[in-house]
Amino acid sequence: MTKTTQQGSADFVPPAERIAVFDNDGTLWSEQPIYFQLAFALDRIMVLAPQHPEWKTTQPFKGVLDGDLKAVLATGEKGLMQIIAVSHVGNTTEEFEEIVKDWIASARHPTTKRPYTEMVFQPMLDVLTYLRTNGYKTYIVSGGGVEFMRPWVERAYGIPPEQVVGSRAKVKYEVRDGVPVLLRLPEIDLIDDKAGKPVGIHQVIGRRPVIAFGNSDGDFEMLEWTTNAKGPRLGVIVHHTDAEREWAYDRDSHIGQLARGLDEGPKRGWVIVDMKTDWKVIHPLQQ
Amino acid sequence: MTKTTQQGSADFVPPAERIAVFDNDGTLWSEQPIYFQLAFALDRIMVLAPQHPEWKTTQPFKGVLDGDLKAVLATGEKGLMQIIAVSHVGNTTEEFEEIVKDWIASARHPTTKRPYTEMVFQPMLDVLTYLRTNGYKTYIVSGGGVEFMRPWVERAYGIPPEQVVGSRAKVKYEVRDGVPVLLRLPEIDLIDDKAGKPVGIHQVIGRRPVIAFGNSDGDFEMLEWTTNAKGPRLGVIVHHTDAEREWAYDRDSHIGQLARGLDEGPKRGWVIVDMKTDWKVIHPLQQ
Repeated sequence: MTKTTQQGSADFVPPAERIAVFDNDGTLWSEQPIYFQLAFALDRIMVLAPQHPEWKTTQPFKGVLDGDLKAVLATGEKGLMQIIAVSHVGNTTEEFEEIVKDWIASARHPTTKRPYTEMVFQPMLDVLTYLRTNGYKTYIVSGGGVEFMRPWVERAYGIPPEQVVGSRAKVKYEVRDGVPVLLRLPEIDLIDDKAGKPVGIHQVIGRRPVIAFGNSDGDFEMLEWTTNAKGPRLGVIVHHTDAEREWAYDRDSHIGQLARGLDEGPKRGWVIVDMKTDWKVIHPLQQ
Repeated sequence: MTKTTQQGSADFVPPAERIAVFDNDGTLWSEQPIYFQLAFALDRIMVLAPQHPEWKTTQPFKGVLDGDLKAVLATGEKGLMQIIAVSHVGNTTEEFEEIVKDWIASARHPTTKRPYTEMVFQPMLDVLTYLRTNGYKTYIVSGGGVEFMRPWVERAYGIPPEQVVGSRAKVKYEVRDGVPVLLRLPEIDLIDDKAGKPVGIHQVIGRRPVIAFGNSDGDFEMLEWTTNAKGPRLGVIVHHTDAEREWAYDRDSHIGQLARGLDEGPKRGWVIVDMKTDWKVIHPLQQ
């Protein structure tokens, strides 16, 4: 690191070019047993259910209301998209922001019973602080929804809303009774995952990052784009290896699958972090 | 201004929320007699012409090659879109960046014969510096192409690439012989104009700005979105009134039309700047 911030060093990176990007799910916070944004969507279905009596008999909603996650997952991608659609759109951006803020303040993780914002990784908080101290701008570049992250990441990670890149719905500008709003539409504007990550980076940041952290093959192209250029470059993969303190999963996981990164990462000079042996603390409040 | 930066003031704006947005064409630099990006596109046609002998007999290209702007404009929006398409896409983002850098370094404005980057407005440079000194993040939010602006705005305005919002083409991530590139596609991803400006602001910045500067009705929704909220807000319209030192145009102009802003702006509390009487200097090197 010092090499990139010392004037005169062969690896010096000018302050303006010090951009570091971080995946969120599984890299900055946990992502098991289900993506936390999916937990938000399921909770949202419960809240909206009284207005939708038909959900009692229709999948995937029946499964959500019955707490039968298997029935939900059996509806496949189509069912999950229905859940995302009814839980994530149809409101204004400001209404959605309030919904997310309320949820993140009150929801608890199903197994640890802690607030989700306590499921962040202490060593990653340290990395973020260290990089910012050295003049790096830290960005989130996540497959998760940008509007799901912006309301709470500043407090959790010290990353402001304008430094969050994520998947997003289309929005439409409207003036309602003289009040301008941005309405969230049921149309996807960007899937910020896999080859979509360099695209999202280009759209929002417009420079190639110098440093990238990820944990799954969804981050492969982001690390490839970041590290495959002149000058000092750093790619890091967080490998979930600690079944006791967190979760252990990689090649065969339904979430955060990691195979190509393990196979090709070391050859490409990427650092593979072994959570079990490399991290003394995982979650901040963990003993 | 001091009101918003003094702790304890009723109008205090927390540093994180100090976002100021600026239109580019006609607000930060001139836009006559044709948008400077259109001048870039026309120059690009000249460069590419040897590879396209058919252009000698086909409009709108024939008009460009003959220097017959009337014939070009007669082809209407369809013709202009053809010019933008052949001049702006089909290359990688890094190739396009080099093309823009070369052009901005060598091209000259048709009437003043100065580099385009000397056609910026000195009073606006002063505003940008003043706001940044007071902790405001300054963003460009322009109908112009984001990739046309990013290569030179840092030097011209002190605004880094990641603080530029603009219209954009779709890009696609590809690995060519082991080298990752972003390819610029002939598809529009966002028209960052009119109601598209609040959308672009939301996508890239994710917070509502506190201050907005524009000059045409293409900026109306951006000023409306910025000023129609709680707390101190500032909307400013630069009115081109100086036919001698710059250009004078508003309601009937084919570029930068301004009618609704003049009619409704004052009622909405927006400041209308009269370039002729309010600005001692317009362009930096002007006597």
